[in-house]
Parts: sequence; structure tokens; C-alpha cells
Amino acid sequence: MSDLLKRTVTAVFLILLVFCIIQFLPIELFSLILFIIIGLAVYEFIKLCQPKQYSLGLIFIFGIIIGYYFTYKTIELHLVLILILFGSGLYFLFSIKQKEYLTFFVRDIGIHFLSVFYLYFPLYFLLEIRRMGANYLFFLIFVIAFGDSGAYFIGRLFGKHKVYPVASPKKTWEGLIAAVIVASLSGWLGILIFPISVKIWKVIITAGLIGLFSQLSDPIESLFKRAVSKKDSGSLLPGHGGVLDRLDSYIFCGPLFFFLVDFLWM
Amino acid sequence: MSDLLKRTVTAVFLILLVFCIIQFLPIELFSLILFIIIGLAVYEFIKLCQPKQYSLGLIFIFGIIIGYYFTYKTIELHLVLILILFGSGLYFLFSIKQKEYLTFFVRDIGIHFLSVFYLYFPLYFLLEIRRMGANYLFFLIFVIAFGDSGAYFIGRLFGKHKVYPVASPKKTWEGLIAAVIVASLSGWLGILIFPISVKIWKVIITAGLIGLFSQLSDPIESLFKRAVSKKDSGSLLPGHGGVLDRLDSYIFCGPLFFFLVDFLWM
Repeated sequence: MSDLLKRTVTAVFLILLVFCIIQFLPIELFSLILFIIIGLAVYEFIKLCQPKQYSLGLIFIFGIIIGYYFTYKTIELHLVLILILFGSGLYFLFSIKQKEYLTFFVRDIGIHFLSVFYLYFPLYFLLEIRRMGANYLFFLIFVIAFGDSGAYFIGRLFGKHKVYPVASPKKTWEGLIAAVIVASLSGWLGILIFPISVKIWKVIITAGLIGLFSQLSDPIESLFKRAVSKKDSGSLLPGHGGVLDRLDSYIFCGPLFFFLVDFLWM
Repeated sequence: MSDLLKRTVTAVFLILLVFCIIQFLPIELFSLILFIIIGLAVYEFIKLCQPKQYSLGLIFIFGIIIGYYFTYKTIELHLVLILILFGSGLYFLFSIKQKEYLTFFVRDIGIHFLSVFYLYFPLYFLLEIRRMGANYLFFLIFVIAFGDSGAYFIGRLFGKHKVYPVASPKKTWEGLIAAVIVASLSGWLGILIFPISVKIWKVIITAGLIGLFSQLSDPIESLFKRAVSKKDSGSLLPGHGGVLDRLDSYIFCGPLFFFLVDFLWM
């Protein structure tokens, strides 16, 4: 009971903290905190993929460039991409001094690119969403939380038919359908709690799609986990509840929500 | 002698063909030809890297999206990147049916990203340069050709100190310096043949930098070649004179020249 109380207090504290960060901080400070959080996820990702030759410093510089781009929009995105290409290319050209590293080169430079285009770039869309208004970001978090919970509980109770047996054996079609339905309904509720002036059918379609894509991004993270595990055991990373695990739904759902608001809601 | 004649005729024919394509074709047709040429380079790149699980069709769709972006500029670049992320993610999620492919997953998805961000994206800057004017593209080709030749002949005659022993054992500091000097001088000549209204010191600095970066992009391509060779022999891919070999200098020099014109020449 005391343990449950402790957990509840921690949870309430965390929710309040996230609420204050989103509601009250100016864009620049929000961007800084986002940069640190994504940085932790990138660090976990690098540790997970275990490249032989890599530069955390360089990858964080890429993160700074992307953060700068999203925060100030004073540089062109195509320049950002070229800086990342040049940085990676020159780094590997001058750092590979031993022939044994050559075997891992393609994978290693691939991980540099993945850190940027699989993590920093899509997750920085959370800043874009915050910029549209705090309520947009609250809405997204609300819908993802309900969709994931729906998928988890319904999947556990009724789940039988596996969606991706290799990537994520626990994900079932029953859970996936539950995620879409629960997310749609939570969208209805969410727009009442965090009012945004938009037609209700657009909200429900958007929330359903968020529920669907949330169930897609999690197994993709699983692929990365399973790709490095020696054996496909049940608990791949024992006790792992890291930042990447908390953020994985937003990799797909952040950009998806941004573009849906941009094309459908406006 | 007859062989030399044949080669000369072929070379003259090719130069005339490239000249006509650059000088006379409208932007859309030029873009289509560029798309085919880069596509061949991407195909060679994929064959070189030998991913276990990949979709040439999907990678070419990415190429079409990038070509469309550069040709028409009616979609936002950040949407292009997200489409590529979603496409790759969903492809791997649903195509990995066997556990043995998991071992190669990080490398394979990395190769998908590299095809886009190491080849399609930077090489499509040639269209941006063509759009500024045919003379800009002629100037770039002229300077790269002279710089590379300078590096090759001076390097062969006087080269002793290796720049990157692992990546490209034949590249020497003597050749690198020769590339910068010869490229600078050829820039002087080039601007007379292909007149552009710009101060001569800007031309010389730009041409020198093109010479330098041309000597950087070639060894990066070598890294990819050496990464897959079982043994580090002298001739890695016997008789290989493919499209990728012809284009490698433009991977770095295309975007570099574009941004130099944008920031320095304008």
C-alpha cells in the first residue's frame, strides 16, 4: 500500500511537471528541454545498436543543428541535411584508421543517419505541435495514452491473432483494433478537456489514426531491440523502461498529428 | 591507334551529349534524366552494400519523391523526410518475417536511409545548379574534371605522403594540394569559357574548395567499397567503372557549389 502510494505520488508529480513544461515555458526553453530528452533517447539508441565507430559528440551536434532549425527556422532544411551529410562523411573518412572497422562502416554510418532521421527529426515535431498551441500537444499525449492502454488491456484479455510475430509477438489484431477505437473515443473526450476549434469528425478520424500509428512505431523500436539481442528471449532488456520506450509512439505520431492538423484541421 | 580513335570518338560524343542535355533540355526533362542517372548509381550502391532485406521499388519511390520535391518545390521538405521515415519503417515492420533477418536489420534500414541522404538528396543539387543557369553546371563539371586530373597526375609523379591510408591508399597530400591549385586555376579559365557575372577572387576560392572536396568524396565512396571486400586487394571491383564512380565527386561538390554560389557569389 505504501508502495502504491509512492508510485501514485511520483506519477502525479510527473504529470504536473510535464503539464507545467508544456503550458508555461516559452518556446526556446521548451525546445531546450525537448533537446535534452531526445538526447537521452538517442544515447539509449546508440548504446542499444552498439556501433563500433561513432561519435556521440558529432551526433549531438546534429541534434543541436536540428533543434536550432526547428526553434528559429532561420536556416533552410536542405542546408541542415547537407551539413549532416558532410559531418558524417568527413568524420568517418578521418576516423577510420584500422581496417577492422571497415567491416562495420556501413552499419555505423547508418546508425549516425538513423539517430538523426529516426529520432531527432521526427521527435522535434513535438515543438511544432507545441507552437500551434499547448492544447494540441496535450490532446496528442492524451490520445496516445488512452490508445496504448486500450491496446494493452484489450490485447491482454482477448488478443489471439498476432500482427507481427517477429517484431513484437505480444501485439495482436484485437489490441490494434482496440487502440483505434479507444483512441477515437478518447479524442472526443480530449477535445472537450483541451478545447480546440475544429469539427468533431476530424478529431475522431485524427485520433483513430494516432491510435493506429502508435501501434506501429512501438514494434519498429522492438525491431532495433531484437536486432541486437543474441537470443530472442522474452525480456530483452531486463528492467528497461528508458526514455526511448516512453517516446517511441511519438516518432510516428508526432509528425502524423502535425500534418493531419496542417492538412485536415486547418 | 584505331582503339585510341574509337575512344576519342566516344569521348567527344559523350561530351556533346552531356552538353546538349545541360544546355537545351527544359528543367523537367533534365530532372528526368538526372533521376535515371542517380537511379543507376543507387542501384550500383545497393548491389555494392548487399543488404539482406531491401526494396529497390521503395527506394526508387523515395527517389521519385525527392525528384518531385526538387523539380516542382510544391511540397515541403520536412514532409518528404517524414514520408521516407514512414515508408522505411512500415516496410521493415511488415517485411521481416524471419528472425535471421533481424541480425541485419540495422544495417539494412541504414542502407535505405543512405540511398536517400548520401545519393538522391545531394546529387539532386545538380538540378538546383542547372536552374541557376547552364553555365554554372558547366563551370562545376569543368573545375572537377581539371582538379581530379591534376590530383591524379601530380599524385602519380610526386605523391609520397598518404592522406587516408585505410580509405584510399593512392591519395596523397601532394595530389590533394595539386587538386586545389589546379582547380583554382581552372576556375579562372572556366569563368572565361562559361561567363558568369561574379568577382574573380570569389571564383578562385570556390574552385579551390571544389578541388578540395572532390578529393574528399571519392575516398568516402572507397570506404563503402572496401567495407564489403573480403580482402583489401588492389583492385576491389575489377573493371568497375560504373555510374557511381563518375558521380562520386558531385555528392559533396554539388551541394557545396550550390551553397557557395548562394552565400558567396550572390
